[in-house]
Amino acid sequence: MTLCLPAAGRPYALAIFLEDWVELREIGEFGLIDRIRKWTCTHNPALLKGIGDDVAVIESGKKVLLITTDLLIEDIHFELNWIDPFHLGKKALLVNISDIAAMGGTPKYFLISLGLPRNLSLSFISSFYRGLKDGAKRFGVDLIGGDTSVSGKIIVNICLLGEGKRGSLLFRSGAKVGDDLFVSGTLGDAALGLKILQKNGPQGKPRGLIQRHHSPSPRIQLGQALARHHGATAMIDVSDGLLIDAHHLLAESGVGAQIWEDRIPLSNLYQKWIHLFSKSPYQFALSGGEDYELLFTARPEMRQKVSELALSFKIPITHIGKIVPKSEGLHVIGLDGEKYSPARLGFEHFK
Amino acid sequence: MTLCLPAAGRPYALAIFLEDWVELREIGEFGLIDRIRKWTCTHNPALLKGIGDDVAVIESGKKVLLITTDLLIEDIHFELNWIDPFHLGKKALLVNISDIAAMGGTPKYFLISLGLPRNLSLSFISSFYRGLKDGAKRFGVDLIGGDTSVSGKIIVNICLLGEGKRGSLLFRSGAKVGDDLFVSGTLGDAALGLKILQKNGPQGKPRGLIQRHHSPSPRIQLGQALARHHGATAMIDVSDGLLIDAHHLLAESGVGAQIWEDRIPLSNLYQKWIHLFSKSPYQFALSGGEDYELLFTARPEMRQKVSELALSFKIPITHIGKIVPKSEGLHVIGLDGEKYSPARLGFEHFK
Repeated sequence: MTLCLPAAGRPYALAIFLEDWVELREIGEFGLIDRIRKWTCTHNPALLKGIGDDVAVIESGKKVLLITTDLLIEDIHFELNWIDPFHLGKKALLVNISDIAAMGGTPKYFLISLGLPRNLSLSFISSFYRGLKDGAKRFGVDLIGGDTSVSGKIIVNICLLGEGKRGSLLFRSGAKVGDDLFVSGTLGDAALGLKILQKNGPQGKPRGLIQRHHSPSPRIQLGQALARHHGATAMIDVSDGLLIDAHHLLAESGVGAQIWEDRIPLSNLYQKWIHLFSKSPYQFALSGGEDYELLFTARPEMRQKVSELALSFKIPITHIGKIVPKSEGLHVIGLDGEKYSPARLGFEHFK
Repeated sequence: MTLCLPAAGRPYALAIFLEDWVELREIGEFGLIDRIRKWTCTHNPALLKGIGDDVAVIESGKKVLLITTDLLIEDIHFELNWIDPFHLGKKALLVNISDIAAMGGTPKYFLISLGLPRNLSLSFISSFYRGLKDGAKRFGVDLIGGDTSVSGKIIVNICLLGEGKRGSLLFRSGAKVGDDLFVSGTLGDAALGLKILQKNGPQGKPRGLIQRHHSPSPRIQLGQALARHHGATAMIDVSDGLLIDAHHLLAESGVGAQIWEDRIPLSNLYQKWIHLFSKSPYQFALSGGEDYELLFTARPEMRQKVSELALSFKIPITHIGKIVPKSEGLHVIGLDGEKYSPARLGFEHFK
């Protein structure tokens, strides 16, 4: 590995001096990730994808190794008021599996680091592990190791390994002007489910929306099929929200996109309940996170193929927009037919 | 993967009921790990080592893949009063590299999950990354991904991947009655260095001991040589303290050990300064953690070979005891020639 100094040619001492005055909240999560990329560039030819995608891709013989990691912290990513230990364990694993799904890979093994308060009951931890096992069994993955530590708040870090074939993987980069933009499933349900939990407590209704918040459905088989048939050109999972994840895909592909609000897929439950929680019917569908659906681009000639995949996997896939030149940015055509650029894309840490 | 219910045949509902009354502090870190093993047994033939060693081992074509993870939490594992961000970043990586060293593997890639307070300065984070890069460069490893989140306390989780050859790896299991017990380097320096920092602050002296606390020296080449030449039968790195790590090795091997106090290798600095911090000259050498030296067992006929390796790598290796039947447990022959069983082995989380 060749590790590079931050931004070659930049006055280094001056940069460090200036950094003393900058706090994380000013640059935000994505500003930080950009800097980390500059600080830690690498020239290892076996590394096919590093920082920039959710999953790192390494050549390993005939196959490629996929690795992703996700840090969950109590009261930041979850609150024990809104999720029980079984679903917390299960979800911690499934969100990582969704990252592998978004590349078209197969999840295989995971390690879990747990920070746990000293006074936590063993029954909490055994429920957590039952949830973890339930998710692991469903996707055929093995828990192979981890670390445990005492901690004030609960901390869960999972590192998931998967595998794929070099020619059968999709990345965030790869979208081209003229491509269609698709999304699987329906959007906004998980975020609305969380709102219901926060307002009405664990016994809140409808259960269907709360269920979407508690139990994501990573689209492993659909992701593999899209990657295998070269049906898609770029893909990402919708974890932070449609707009912000679309923004990530566009940034890595060097393109813009137009999204049609009236095409965004909403569930019946979402449509029935959204008016109690927001004046804007698309708010959670556009900017709410944790849907764990697949957002992908494909050439227009693949529309028939995409429809066939939707039918064969019994997962709705909706054509919600198109890829446009980078200069046009990311914009939405609202219900009224007016074009607008969203002021806030979605959740960002530190800001 | 076949996931097993906790302890087949055990009255499950009753067990869950009882667990409601048990807190983590009562069973401790190793009690928890034992339960996790029971909760999550697996029968995947590609998994050569899972929970039980610090490193998981997976078959991957001709090579085996090694994976380890380590969670560090501010005010639990480190305090910003005692370590600067450069050394924190470096050490977070090196402690994982030490786990790979203890198997005789080669570290290759790592992911880092960071929880960071919103008001942390960018200069802190760039120093942290410079330390990380410094450690990465020294051992030829690549940063390939990670996750970032806002957090109250600083959280660092590294997941390190390495590789090895199937016949050239050492595990905690493998020690046999009659084997010699060896340790590399000197013990207790890092723990004494931390005590000096805590008492005298960052400007405390001597720097050599503080340096041992800040900058571990993972024994990658020595570990590989011991594994390659089948010079050793079992190995572990001394991260939590000599006695407790010896206990882990013995438990996995199903044997006991006798350790000779007068043979425990102490540095000149340690011998000069220990009396200011402890009445017991071996306290930190026996139970202080963070030495990151190799503790290994070898057949007596390998003594010459072990001496040659020490000479060729310029690392002292000391014969500090012998493997005895399990029934004799882990005991120490004190300076006075009396045999004793240590009451407390070392640090354990949750207790």
